[in-house]
Amino acid sequence: MDTILLGHGSGGKLMHDLIHEYFGPAFGIKGAGDSALVTMPSNRIAFTTDSYVVTPLFFPGGNIGDLAVHGTVNDLAVSGARPLFLTAGFILEEGFPLVDLKTIIASMSAAAKKAGIQIVAGDTKVVNKGKADGMFINTSGIGYVPDGREISSSRIKSGDIILISGEIGCHGTAIIAERNGLTFEPKITTDSCPLNGLVEVMFEASSEIHFMRDPTRGGFATTLKEAALESGLCMRIREQDLPIPPAVKGACSLLGLDPLYAANEGIFIAIVDKAVSKEVLAAMRMHEYGRNAAIIGEVTTTPSRMLLLETPIGGSRMMDMLQGEQLPRIC
Amino acid sequence: MDTILLGHGSGGKLMHDLIHEYFGPAFGIKGAGDSALVTMPSNRIAFTTDSYVVTPLFFPGGNIGDLAVHGTVNDLAVSGARPLFLTAGFILEEGFPLVDLKTIIASMSAAAKKAGIQIVAGDTKVVNKGKADGMFINTSGIGYVPDGREISSSRIKSGDIILISGEIGCHGTAIIAERNGLTFEPKITTDSCPLNGLVEVMFEASSEIHFMRDPTRGGFATTLKEAALESGLCMRIREQDLPIPPAVKGACSLLGLDPLYAANEGIFIAIVDKAVSKEVLAAMRMHEYGRNAAIIGEVTTTPSRMLLLETPIGGSRMMDMLQGEQLPRIC
Repeated sequence: MDTILLGHGSGGKLMHDLIHEYFGPAFGIKGAGDSALVTMPSNRIAFTTDSYVVTPLFFPGGNIGDLAVHGTVNDLAVSGARPLFLTAGFILEEGFPLVDLKTIIASMSAAAKKAGIQIVAGDTKVVNKGKADGMFINTSGIGYVPDGREISSSRIKSGDIILISGEIGCHGTAIIAERNGLTFEPKITTDSCPLNGLVEVMFEASSEIHFMRDPTRGGFATTLKEAALESGLCMRIREQDLPIPPAVKGACSLLGLDPLYAANEGIFIAIVDKAVSKEVLAAMRMHEYGRNAAIIGEVTTTPSRMLLLETPIGGSRMMDMLQGEQLPRIC
Repeated sequence: MDTILLGHGSGGKLMHDLIHEYFGPAFGIKGAGDSALVTMPSNRIAFTTDSYVVTPLFFPGGNIGDLAVHGTVNDLAVSGARPLFLTAGFILEEGFPLVDLKTIIASMSAAAKKAGIQIVAGDTKVVNKGKADGMFINTSGIGYVPDGREISSSRIKSGDIILISGEIGCHGTAIIAERNGLTFEPKITTDSCPLNGLVEVMFEASSEIHFMRDPTRGGFATTLKEAALESGLCMRIREQDLPIPPAVKGACSLLGLDPLYAANEGIFIAIVDKAVSKEVLAAMRMHEYGRNAAIIGEVTTTPSRMLLLETPIGGSRMMDMLQGEQLPRIC
């Protein structure tokens, strides 16, 4: 038996065997109870969920498994929370190769270990051949928010400084290149990584971090436009300060994409008090996932609710959210 | 526009509109942040996840939406936790009718209200036409475990009394009948309902509740066999005391199914100290979802790790876990 059968989702013996042979050892889950019981260090809890439907399942620099761990860890981290526990829900298609399942589970386990979080509960469903696209994964996560941290678009104020934690456009470009059988030189790989450690060093540098959000689907521009709409302020970005790798620029140009709308899975936008922006940037650059962090703009009062991209020659371009679908099933 | 488009999963404007018009109002979710921030009354947290892939999406007595809420609420409740917060992750197929989405969301909202829990965060992904089967839903939930409660198969001891909270076999039989276009008289409907209120009245009656688990996939027999394996003891059940509705018996007989392996979504098995079993049963019977609760057997030392079904004529049948797949995609 080397593929998933419908019976693996039945709740009976096949499912028990799958749990005991695959999920249990990889994730260190022992109990067979309905819920995981955990102790949180605080009662201020962040709770999030994401389903992953990326295609292809394996892509340069990652696969759906580590992506699913990083994505949910990062959603917690940019909320100011310390991610602690994750659940993993699998929807598998009948006929899915067990060898691929094993690889994906191993990636999840490694990603969880690297992020310092624990996968504590799971669920497996199997649907008939042709009724899913290989596999989908849901991860949900909880973390706690240490006292004194408040990350919210309502805290953004005029004069605040806008930072990006790393290079823009890698994940979406890597996926679309893989999907189309294109290779670029240098090779573009996903930026998918856990960002909770980077967030911690920022809070060590200063508590005056007002807002963070990771520009996944919708990309950089959509996320900053959200910040503009939610805060009622203007996000003013200097185009020449945006760290976009030349290979990403080249690939996007060839594919007719705008890197500012491409999905990212290993960076976030941070908006911080001007007085601490240099210290925060310096701290970020010392961290493995913040080496390319940069100050890219500032918040102004007007024009309100706008995202403005200022070009090197003195012009400016107003940017909206992503319209329609640039790159389906990117995560 | 009356169906789901790929763009609804893009993270851009279409997705924002979907959230603001559909999910936001139904669930009362306001923020657009990456995580929900909640305050828990205790740091003893239960955390669980389940994906729902039931087919058909609508069935007698419910749909995938309320099923997804009840299922996760019940997983928390039978762990002894008070369910408080839920996340909802949707995987939608391109072309899915928005009218059905609206109905399903309304059912989730009503189910959450009835269970006294709050849906605090969500996620929507869209996959291409033919790459999913209408919709899949993941719900993850957190609750807190009040002091003094410990539900675990390790607490089961010889002499304990085994109870069932309601009638057996309704959900699985209702789904399979619907799938095959069969109707029975009286009509069989799912038992899907929130069980957290019933669990609370049991703990009010006694803290000597050692074990609870809901026999969903795999059914009654698989769940009790798990309890036998985990505790190392024998679960001895009196067949004539099992509350199986005549319509379920008839349908199962016609369909070649065993009701003891059919999925349930609104009952649980409880194992309690003998000294308090009558008080617990009396309390259960006063509750709307415990009216048909019954004492069905007891725990003995030998034969160890066995589930024994004692027949009225003095025989006994050893039951194993569900083998293979009796009813695929039942939840």
